[in-house]
Amino acid sequence: MKLAVDTLGGDLGSPVIVKAIKSFLSKHNDVEIIAFGKKEELAELEGIATIVDAPEVVPMEAGALEVLRMKNSSMLNAVKQMKENGYDGVVSCGSTGAFLSSATITLKLIPGIKRAALVAPFPTKIKGKKVIILDIGASNENSGEELYQFAKMGRLYYQGVYGVEEPKTYILSNGLEEGKGSPSGKEAYKMLKENSFPGFKGNVEARYALSGEADVIVTDGYSGNVFLKSTEGTAKIFSSLLKDAFKKNLWSKLGYLHVRSGIKNMTEIFDYKNTGGAMLLGVNGVVVKAHGSSDEIAFESALDVAYKMNKSGVVNKIKEAIN
Amino acid sequence: MKLAVDTLGGDLGSPVIVKAIKSFLSKHNDVEIIAFGKKEELAELEGIATIVDAPEVVPMEAGALEVLRMKNSSMLNAVKQMKENGYDGVVSCGSTGAFLSSATITLKLIPGIKRAALVAPFPTKIKGKKVIILDIGASNENSGEELYQFAKMGRLYYQGVYGVEEPKTYILSNGLEEGKGSPSGKEAYKMLKENSFPGFKGNVEARYALSGEADVIVTDGYSGNVFLKSTEGTAKIFSSLLKDAFKKNLWSKLGYLHVRSGIKNMTEIFDYKNTGGAMLLGVNGVVVKAHGSSDEIAFESALDVAYKMNKSGVVNKIKEAIN
Repeated sequence: MKLAVDTLGGDLGSPVIVKAIKSFLSKHNDVEIIAFGKKEELAELEGIATIVDAPEVVPMEAGALEVLRMKNSSMLNAVKQMKENGYDGVVSCGSTGAFLSSATITLKLIPGIKRAALVAPFPTKIKGKKVIILDIGASNENSGEELYQFAKMGRLYYQGVYGVEEPKTYILSNGLEEGKGSPSGKEAYKMLKENSFPGFKGNVEARYALSGEADVIVTDGYSGNVFLKSTEGTAKIFSSLLKDAFKKNLWSKLGYLHVRSGIKNMTEIFDYKNTGGAMLLGVNGVVVKAHGSSDEIAFESALDVAYKMNKSGVVNKIKEAIN
Repeated sequence: MKLAVDTLGGDLGSPVIVKAIKSFLSKHNDVEIIAFGKKEELAELEGIATIVDAPEVVPMEAGALEVLRMKNSSMLNAVKQMKENGYDGVVSCGSTGAFLSSATITLKLIPGIKRAALVAPFPTKIKGKKVIILDIGASNENSGEELYQFAKMGRLYYQGVYGVEEPKTYILSNGLEEGKGSPSGKEAYKMLKENSFPGFKGNVEARYALSGEADVIVTDGYSGNVFLKSTEGTAKIFSSLLKDAFKKNLWSKLGYLHVRSGIKNMTEIFDYKNTGGAMLLGVNGVVVKAHGSSDEIAFESALDVAYKMNKSGVVNKIKEAIN
């Protein structure tokens, strides 16, 4: 298995990416890593990975056109060489917009797929159990038919990566009943029902999305993004209020000592760094977007996800299911 | 000031509503309450409020047509008599769908208003500071023009109820830049910018919505509902994880004693019971929807909101601003 890795554009710089690659390779002797970035920053990888000097950094706010013009960028080179050399996947923690658009333009959509979808795993109330939600922001707007395809792709992803035979699939909605939801959500509901989509369970309200009942939740990219970010924002505010509570006085600081393992466990559940970032489904290849703030552990989980996606053959399964 | 109160349909039954009314009236001698419900359950209000026997309870899942047929229901009578007798507001903790639709059909939209919007205050990172978000679920879909009107109504509401002269108004979006957002959000952005809408600050991402920077955030009803419920869901999961952390052993239980005031403060910030429910803006009258799970305190805050909305003349200000 050959994975192209963009080592630039992350908040913490390439050193953490190098560490992640080293740790990942120590556990997988069936993978070859091709690392794109500033050659001098990748010296530690010599002998264990292929190094490609592509020193330009794509800025965080770069759009599709901008990145396609940056011929020396680590990101564009990683994506292009993946396509040209037939590598099995590409992983980046750089600009989301630039990465998704350059990957979609270069690798192209799987024939029959209307839109690619960004999918991410979310923590749930049930320890260790993840729910995947798609699209969380590849599009601004989606039709019912696109959502129907998202359900198909989400199901195949969940089966492949989590090994669950019959994932429970829901539509994100503002009410449980069939008539509720966004216009595209209602359309998708009808299609999923009429086609007796396996494991389709109807609507789920945002407040129960993380209860652990659902395996796959489909939604349009705009609402999915609102969901992702409001969950993130609330978790952050809660954490900061929690810290304040413990800082109050010496007694509360001592109190912290007794609960810190529990609190740590709690914040880990809500730490998106442990989830391996987001995956672009619907394109011809494995595309994994690690968080911009990825540390070594986070980036290694992103590499793990690319590995698992390959092992389970999700991309080919999507191709077969659509055609 | 005369307020119609629907005492049925809440999760905790009419006794908490009766207590809330009594407590509210003890603080406001300029208000007359007309209480609709089961006469025998309202005996305690005799002599201090007008009691109207309307014993039918509108079921939680009732739709518009259903409630309009329930001639003996406390909800429909409260709404109808408010209109017929010119009361100054109506408050209910019954079925949201039934209450909003019966109020909109009976009271009618303010001429010029395209759609009513449900608005609610949210807690922020800044203690005591609220941000209001609209629409959080009166519609499934909204046009840019409707969002523009929501900005106007939200501004007038924030000015009236919170006494802030120049509220900072944002559009909920998936990115800060002007080109980001849902189709209706982008349209509204253009209109707000072209009309130099006072206090308009551009887009805000869902993750920063509760940071305390924004006063008013406009969004379509579907996305607003997703925001509301994902915030609520995340806060609930966090609270339950927190409880588990403290239950671990005797030491963690002792630790809790030292931080409980801080934790209590934190959960209060996220307790929607303290915010007085949601208000329907754009109709001819003050319409306040208290939470279905309202306790005495929650319902009294809802009454307080109806009182403040009247005192500040928000409805008339919206009429003037639109025409």
